[in-house]
Amino acid sequence: MPKEPRAARTEAADGWRLLSRVKRPRDLDRFSPEQLNELAAEIRSFLVDAVAKTGGHLGPNLGVVELTIALHRVFHSPQDRVLFDTGHQSYVHKLLTGRQDFGKLKSKGGLSGYPSRAESEHDVIENSHASTVLGWAEGLAKANELRRKKDHVVAVIGDGALTGGMAWEALNNIAAAKDRPLVIVVNDNERSYAPTIGGLANHLATLRTTDGYERFLARGKDLLERTPVVGRPLYGTLHGAKKGLKDFIAPQGMFEDLGLKYVGPIDGHDIEALESALERAKRFGGPVIVHCLTEKGRGYTPALQDEADRFHAVGKIHPDTGLPISSSGADWTSVFGEEMVKLGTERDDIVAITAAMLQPVGLEKFAKAFPDRVFDVGIAEQHAAVSAAGLATGGLHPVFAVYATFLNRAFDQVLMDVALHKCGVTFVLDRAGITGTDGASHNGMWDMSILQVVPGLRLAAPRDADQVRAQLREAVEVTDAPTVVRYSKGAVGPAVKAVNRIGGMDILREPASEGRPAGRADVLLVSIGALAPMCLEVADLLDKQGISTTVVDPRWVKPVDETMPVLAERHRVVVTVEDNSRVGGVGSAIAQALRDADVDVPLRDFGIPPRFLDHASRKEILAEIGLTAPDIARQVTGLVAKIDGRYEATAAGAAGVHAGSAEPARD
Amino acid sequence: MPKEPRAARTEAADGWRLLSRVKRPRDLDRFSPEQLNELAAEIRSFLVDAVAKTGGHLGPNLGVVELTIALHRVFHSPQDRVLFDTGHQSYVHKLLTGRQDFGKLKSKGGLSGYPSRAESEHDVIENSHASTVLGWAEGLAKANELRRKKDHVVAVIGDGALTGGMAWEALNNIAAAKDRPLVIVVNDNERSYAPTIGGLANHLATLRTTDGYERFLARGKDLLERTPVVGRPLYGTLHGAKKGLKDFIAPQGMFEDLGLKYVGPIDGHDIEALESALERAKRFGGPVIVHCLTEKGRGYTPALQDEADRFHAVGKIHPDTGLPISSSGADWTSVFGEEMVKLGTERDDIVAITAAMLQPVGLEKFAKAFPDRVFDVGIAEQHAAVSAAGLATGGLHPVFAVYATFLNRAFDQVLMDVALHKCGVTFVLDRAGITGTDGASHNGMWDMSILQVVPGLRLAAPRDADQVRAQLREAVEVTDAPTVVRYSKGAVGPAVKAVNRIGGMDILREPASEGRPAGRADVLLVSIGALAPMCLEVADLLDKQGISTTVVDPRWVKPVDETMPVLAERHRVVVTVEDNSRVGGVGSAIAQALRDADVDVPLRDFGIPPRFLDHASRKEILAEIGLTAPDIARQVTGLVAKIDGRYEATAAGAAGVHAGSAEPARD
Repeated sequence: MPKEPRAARTEAADGWRLLSRVKRPRDLDRFSPEQLNELAAEIRSFLVDAVAKTGGHLGPNLGVVELTIALHRVFHSPQDRVLFDTGHQSYVHKLLTGRQDFGKLKSKGGLSGYPSRAESEHDVIENSHASTVLGWAEGLAKANELRRKKDHVVAVIGDGALTGGMAWEALNNIAAAKDRPLVIVVNDNERSYAPTIGGLANHLATLRTTDGYERFLARGKDLLERTPVVGRPLYGTLHGAKKGLKDFIAPQGMFEDLGLKYVGPIDGHDIEALESALERAKRFGGPVIVHCLTEKGRGYTPALQDEADRFHAVGKIHPDTGLPISSSGADWTSVFGEEMVKLGTERDDIVAITAAMLQPVGLEKFAKAFPDRVFDVGIAEQHAAVSAAGLATGGLHPVFAVYATFLNRAFDQVLMDVALHKCGVTFVLDRAGITGTDGASHNGMWDMSILQVVPGLRLAAPRDADQVRAQLREAVEVTDAPTVVRYSKGAVGPAVKAVNRIGGMDILREPASEGRPAGRADVLLVSIGALAPMCLEVADLLDKQGISTTVVDPRWVKPVDETMPVLAERHRVVVTVEDNSRVGGVGSAIAQALRDADVDVPLRDFGIPPRFLDHASRKEILAEIGLTAPDIARQVTGLVAKIDGRYEATAAGAAGVHAGSAEPARD
Repeated sequence: MPKEPRAARTEAADGWRLLSRVKRPRDLDRFSPEQLNELAAEIRSFLVDAVAKTGGHLGPNLGVVELTIALHRVFHSPQDRVLFDTGHQSYVHKLLTGRQDFGKLKSKGGLSGYPSRAESEHDVIENSHASTVLGWAEGLAKANELRRKKDHVVAVIGDGALTGGMAWEALNNIAAAKDRPLVIVVNDNERSYAPTIGGLANHLATLRTTDGYERFLARGKDLLERTPVVGRPLYGTLHGAKKGLKDFIAPQGMFEDLGLKYVGPIDGHDIEALESALERAKRFGGPVIVHCLTEKGRGYTPALQDEADRFHAVGKIHPDTGLPISSSGADWTSVFGEEMVKLGTERDDIVAITAAMLQPVGLEKFAKAFPDRVFDVGIAEQHAAVSAAGLATGGLHPVFAVYATFLNRAFDQVLMDVALHKCGVTFVLDRAGITGTDGASHNGMWDMSILQVVPGLRLAAPRDADQVRAQLREAVEVTDAPTVVRYSKGAVGPAVKAVNRIGGMDILREPASEGRPAGRADVLLVSIGALAPMCLEVADLLDKQGISTTVVDPRWVKPVDETMPVLAERHRVVVTVEDNSRVGGVGSAIAQALRDADVDVPLRDFGIPPRFLDHASRKEILAEIGLTAPDIARQVTGLVAKIDGRYEATAAGAAGVHAGSAEPARD
């Protein structure tokens, strides 16, 4: 791979000979085939350098350099819609559509790590949840048809994302409209594939999407059977070692049974072959699949040599070795992962489930220890949950570990399959709360709200590593209801010891006792999960204002602990703090529990405001939304003062209370 | 079809010669082939009679009589697990597993209209949401494997349910384990199919699931190509007229590309052929699909002659003619359906989407008027929502009409595809709130809770037909956010006029004004949607207790109207009443809005308790959970008395308020 001298490179693309000349996709039209290949090499170098500095999705983008160039040569964005599934492979697209300053990638004020409508008219889907692109494409293609627009719609989807049910639902619908143009590019980066040459594949591609191709079909099939390079026999052999999940990317059968024309397989690193296939697909006039074989991490040795696919997404790394520049201490994920191994040793009914994220959710060690008891279901959260209900009904205790934001996709199954059937299934929600740099769709800020409605479900928000271990153990003891353990992303903080316990709740801090009855104080501060250290800080700040504070960690936030109302009414104000949407979250649930107990102590709930959050660091976002100790302390101080004022007014006007108005005094 | 004399029949099966001898599945073993056919005829007569009296799912059950008999002959439930997708086709299964008293089918205390674990050890899945069975089966089969149990797992799924993404996710996983036994029965009741004879099909079936079948594959394929009866060419011809959605039930291709063995097609009304195929599948030792062609409504002329499939589920009907015994007046669905036609005429950008329920959600007239602008996506709620995002981005305004309970499956897509991308998509939720007789999973009691968290989403709960029309129109005017219009099942009540308006909210009743400042009263009663008449009744009852009440209908319940806090603080108590889970619902949202405005007027929220509701009529359930005017009036009266007592105590002890305790007096 030709490289510029390292010293000459900048975070932006100014120093690159060809890349710096691409301000918009049409600038690609001027390049010769040789220049395009040189551009691809420049882009790879640029990406390795840039992503090493900022962190980001390296492997997926190195795999789609030529493909993205070819897409923008053949299709004319933004009139034609070039759509990326999941969106972590859109860096090359960004570089080709006028966004070459990667210096602050994924940081506040910098480029998003995903497509972003705010950044560019060339971006359409900014949702980073997988398997959605075909549905988007189908809708856009229908709209074009109804509005008599001739623009093209192209969807790029990875082979992995095709395992998602949404992809199947969309394919069914796409196949139903045989005359509605839509190009589906399957970016097949299964790394065990030998890079496939273009010769016969291109020839077959030619046959397959020309009008007369049906006449050649029988002959083509014969050819395939007899020709080992792209035919089924060889394909089967290559595929034999892989899990059955991938088998449906058969070069012919299934897609055509569905009624979709198929072009491929194409060498995804041969720009000319790609352009030829895409041009053909563009002209076809109906739904067509272009099957591209690409190499994830292409051109970057550390990525290619890593079997665990750790270069899919990286933190800051040294660009030559691929080694992390800094490593954090113990993280939530590994605490869970290690406890799972212990649990697995103790109980042979415990099984683990992941939706294509074995390593990121911390199940690698469990998988090594108990290979028969871990199930990777692919990108298929719905199936993970339903299958878990089946496993539980069959006598096992499944633990489905998943990013909190992705559980949304299995909400119906958690409710209707697991909870309605009283199945003992444990959901472990990693990356819960504000995750930050991956943008709006990666924040796990919904789970503690939507799961509130699920009858019987119990939800734990452990505050430290000890609690992760303890609450995971409590969760897998429950045999007749879903349990949830949710924790944050990244490094786990220091242990936060309880000083007391009331009901099932840990008291983290008692109020100073002078001058008031035991257990009574001004403020009951309800601290949820990892926010415990911050809540203790809030209490210290309130203390300085003369406001006495109890800090309680409910541990299990659903159902609300029975003793919460008793505890609450020993205080003048209840304040809840959670790393979750304020709407319908733990604060709301506690408020309702207090109402139900006729405890009308004023409550204020702090959490994430009900809006989508732009990418920035977790710390920056917390500051922006006021989830910091000084902010909360200031607001609580003001609230206590208001209530003092109100009670003064009430006391003064108490004789008037029975005159038909209970209006509280306002400040 | 042989019939007993009508007079001799009872609601239970006692009077039936053979059916009455079947107390458990093994009783079937004693019958001869002729007797089994007679039994099938008896069951059909029984079902037509019984369901005509109670209402229920007629068509699907008439289609699976022989299939269910064969399943219980070949497999030994409950050790073997016989699982039904959706469950509306389980009546025959009930009859064969000891449940023959259909007199109170779907009524309180009677049999459930779906499988029910509480009824029988032979029932496993009671969730009536489609496409789940393959996931359940896969989980159960894995559990058997891990626990070294040799019991069989059989999943029965309709062809329609295979369009759901969950089915695809499960198939991928099932196919991945080539040695794990699992029998999938595809109940293919596409009525345009000619009944397929068994000869060649059975022969091929024999070849296909014996160990040596691969050797015969090539010959089998030749045979299929040349033989029009079951081969692809004829299949293609038969299929040509159908929508592409169904095309994947190809006799060979796709399932085998996935790695699943395929048996079929089998005549689903030939018990011997079915048993033979199922026996073969049972012995195969891996995942296998048995493709059965059945006739929905088999043996019942009115059902067979009805193209609109109205006999899928029926109310009480006359058994000979199939005509409804009583017909209700205008219902919510048809009000919506007619307004959609008007909107469609006025605006050509409005398009409609249904997930395989064109008629039940009221889109038939729209479809007739604008056939190009209605999209039936199959049982694929996720796709419906994502595709809608694409349609909206392409310049159209999609209206997705769906049962409220089924929207749960598209929660992630509403949030991440529609809302995050600020798409103007309108979701119309039919059958919202308590629906009753279809049991726990059909109640639409979750939507007003989980949708609260979706940023930007606006949610309307119209109280009468006029409001359905008005709010639908308001909804489709919104271009930059999802909108939701949700209404009840069945007959729409009389118009409820507003007497005033504050902000965007309708005042339905002002308090009597004597003796208090204008607009002030004891109770602010917030009435949501169709509960308006009941809330007015509550106000009348409170009036009699000397408690003055304002009744307000917020119309748009999300976001909470800005004037709500202003209105609330003119009252001593706020009471919210909604036909939705109490947890995180409209009451919770209003409570939060009041807290945010520092309005600490006590609030009590009435709604559906957070548990799954057994089947019973809507009225019975409302009474059981205390959502009736007398119940609510009684509780509010008690609450007002408590608050009076509390204020007395506060007034008396006002001097003590500043001694560090704000504890309210408790009754």
